[in-house]
Amino acid sequence: MSQPCFDYIDQNQGRFLDELRQFLTFPSISADSRHKEDVSHCAQWLVEHLKQIGLESRLIPTQGHPIVWARCKGQSDKKLIIYGHYDVQPVDPVDPWQTDPFMPSIRDGFMYARGASDDKGQLFAHIKGVESLLKTRGGLPCEVVFLFEGEEECGGKSLEHYIQKEKANLAADAVIVSDTSLYDEATPAITYGLRGMAALDVKVTTAAHALHSGSYGGAVGNAVKALSYIISRCSGPDGVVQIPGFYDGVRPLADWERDNIRRLSYDDDKLMAEVGSKIPFGEADYSTLERMWARPTFEVNGISGGYAGEGFKTIIPSCAAAKISMRLVPDQNPHTVIELAKKYLKSICPPYADIDVVPLSAAEPVLFDVENPMIQAGRQALQYGFNAEPVYIRCGGSIPVVTAFWKELKKPVVLMGFGLDSDGAHSVNERFKIDNFIRGAKSSAYLLSNL
Amino acid sequence: MSQPCFDYIDQNQGRFLDELRQFLTFPSISADSRHKEDVSHCAQWLVEHLKQIGLESRLIPTQGHPIVWARCKGQSDKKLIIYGHYDVQPVDPVDPWQTDPFMPSIRDGFMYARGASDDKGQLFAHIKGVESLLKTRGGLPCEVVFLFEGEEECGGKSLEHYIQKEKANLAADAVIVSDTSLYDEATPAITYGLRGMAALDVKVTTAAHALHSGSYGGAVGNAVKALSYIISRCSGPDGVVQIPGFYDGVRPLADWERDNIRRLSYDDDKLMAEVGSKIPFGEADYSTLERMWARPTFEVNGISGGYAGEGFKTIIPSCAAAKISMRLVPDQNPHTVIELAKKYLKSICPPYADIDVVPLSAAEPVLFDVENPMIQAGRQALQYGFNAEPVYIRCGGSIPVVTAFWKELKKPVVLMGFGLDSDGAHSVNERFKIDNFIRGAKSSAYLLSNL
Repeated sequence: MSQPCFDYIDQNQGRFLDELRQFLTFPSISADSRHKEDVSHCAQWLVEHLKQIGLESRLIPTQGHPIVWARCKGQSDKKLIIYGHYDVQPVDPVDPWQTDPFMPSIRDGFMYARGASDDKGQLFAHIKGVESLLKTRGGLPCEVVFLFEGEEECGGKSLEHYIQKEKANLAADAVIVSDTSLYDEATPAITYGLRGMAALDVKVTTAAHALHSGSYGGAVGNAVKALSYIISRCSGPDGVVQIPGFYDGVRPLADWERDNIRRLSYDDDKLMAEVGSKIPFGEADYSTLERMWARPTFEVNGISGGYAGEGFKTIIPSCAAAKISMRLVPDQNPHTVIELAKKYLKSICPPYADIDVVPLSAAEPVLFDVENPMIQAGRQALQYGFNAEPVYIRCGGSIPVVTAFWKELKKPVVLMGFGLDSDGAHSVNERFKIDNFIRGAKSSAYLLSNL
Repeated sequence: MSQPCFDYIDQNQGRFLDELRQFLTFPSISADSRHKEDVSHCAQWLVEHLKQIGLESRLIPTQGHPIVWARCKGQSDKKLIIYGHYDVQPVDPVDPWQTDPFMPSIRDGFMYARGASDDKGQLFAHIKGVESLLKTRGGLPCEVVFLFEGEEECGGKSLEHYIQKEKANLAADAVIVSDTSLYDEATPAITYGLRGMAALDVKVTTAAHALHSGSYGGAVGNAVKALSYIISRCSGPDGVVQIPGFYDGVRPLADWERDNIRRLSYDDDKLMAEVGSKIPFGEADYSTLERMWARPTFEVNGISGGYAGEGFKTIIPSCAAAKISMRLVPDQNPHTVIELAKKYLKSICPPYADIDVVPLSAAEPVLFDVENPMIQAGRQALQYGFNAEPVYIRCGGSIPVVTAFWKELKKPVVLMGFGLDSDGAHSVNERFKIDNFIRGAKSSAYLLSNL
């Protein structure tokens, strides 16, 4: 890594911010069909910008929003894919925004705009890292392919299909994803694990239609009571899942992971205050971070049945429905878990009720070996870019595209986020810390130089 | 009882039906404010008709729909109140009606129209019974006061307030209510007991707002799971209520009642087919009729929480709500039960959740002594009017006005229904069997003659 590149980044900070500002003016809200044109214009702007700094670039049309593809050959046979998404979340509610979400403004060291952190600012840091290397070295040490999708915020599958179809062309040493956060304001992090998911729709029926609770109460089963009984038998008061075989595939936390988690600065009281809860919930034998990152869960995401409006109706509900999702950890298989859950749910359904279970979604958990040289390279890049010791963390959520890259390319995905949890992604007054934008660009340049 | 009166009823059947037809043309839908005028016109028509046949009658204005009051002095100091309601249920859905709900038509021995059975036809049978006595005897053997309300189908309280206010003037030997059904097509019935009710709104909260199930799953309690757990601990798989003290006030079924119920023709399979259920639900030690009539229940009338729409959202719901109603039997006190339920619900709420319990409604159960001479008189009247042996039954529902009469006047309420369960009250193609209309008129006349 040469100092000239870092100097270039520092010297061009003003222009970089102005370009990011332009990028942030596009209301590329992928979930809102009224913004289809805006999404497309944003993608075109990105292609033009990538060409301007010397990359080969084009739009890849899809059934939904286009993918922005760009490539720069490298001076070695190493190859990296850098992922990002140029689409953004809707802006509602608009009133609490202090400035227009698509009129970016700089205040107190932050760039405020929808998408500033999630994910335009983060992907743009990589673009500026690549530009800085090209300008100061005359070329890239390794080949880089940018893949920027426009459907991350609307759950589109176009990029996943593209990865499946083009996996031969996409063969690379690693995939870099910057769409997450630092561990805390001072501590960059490598995310080396994601939970998977298995989701089900459950419907319980006890009669052909709702019945008068006076006329039939005491003779006919109540679907809401049956469903409540079923749910109550799926996980214990401490959250331990009761489905036989559920934990069979669970890989225990390694000793280094428990040590690592113990060393992380973390405060239950702060979390409880943040979410407005009284006490943490979950398995007694695990710390809160362990439970959120490395233990599977059983959640009911929603329930409905009978009359739940104003006042009340004296009915015996004849049907009730719940949406269930289970977060999974390595090496649980979502399809196996779905089958186990279906079997168990049917086995505990009261005899007076019928149950119907429909799988909704399945995503595999992923876990990368932190000893892998590409993960180590990512860690080192963050260390130099942020001038701070990075930590290893896992993430309780699922990032479908990471799973897709992992499954199709069989190479590590380096999750190195430049955002902060306080950036307001998916919320109002979204922002991106300018320091982290610059540090991200430096981390990216460092990574490419030191593979 | 004189034969001339029964002859008069038979001879005037055609005119009676024509008058009932006129009465049924008013769309007196009390729950629909667009029909306010129609309700009022219907009440006026009834007042005029009662005057025509020789009664003193007037409208009693209320904050809602008017009460129709009428009186005819008697030849003894005995006095009966005859209750009915001239308002009707809405008619939606209209399409399945074979004829206009307010263009009454006679087919196959039935009068088809909204309100034919519930309750215009039944109250009109009493009016015709009184008319027939007046015409054939020149006067009534006892004083009769008619009270016909216009708010039964919209849950209005005007009549209850009137009873409270006028209880001195309403002092009577009994109240006659014909707003129920025969036991079966061939068997008239005296209903001597009604269940009461205690209803609650329950809300469980675990956090300030819904949370991402990936980020927080394993750390924060789920409100739907907490509520399901609470509900599952309120009643056992056989319906036995788990609230401590709940059964304390329950009066055991008397031996004669169990014998009586055993003798009634009843078929579980028929009930299951009717409601579309697999097997009956409830306490093992009681027959289905015993459970529906004489045992208390715990029902969840509705539940909501989290995201229950299309697709799914991976959230941990922060709040969930249920509407609970318990059917009560003598001598349970609804207010005591509400307090017991509140205490128990709070005691089983998981430590990570908050629970809020709000009472919604309370109605006392009622049970009349079948040996009471007025009940016996009602039974005999049905026997003569229907020329069949009546049975004693209880009813699983609550009829608030019956409770009000019982509480304020301290006299038995004789529930002698002329309808059939198959009449389609509250449903489409409502009808009233003409034979039962005539038998009802005869029963009414017999009752007044033989107190």
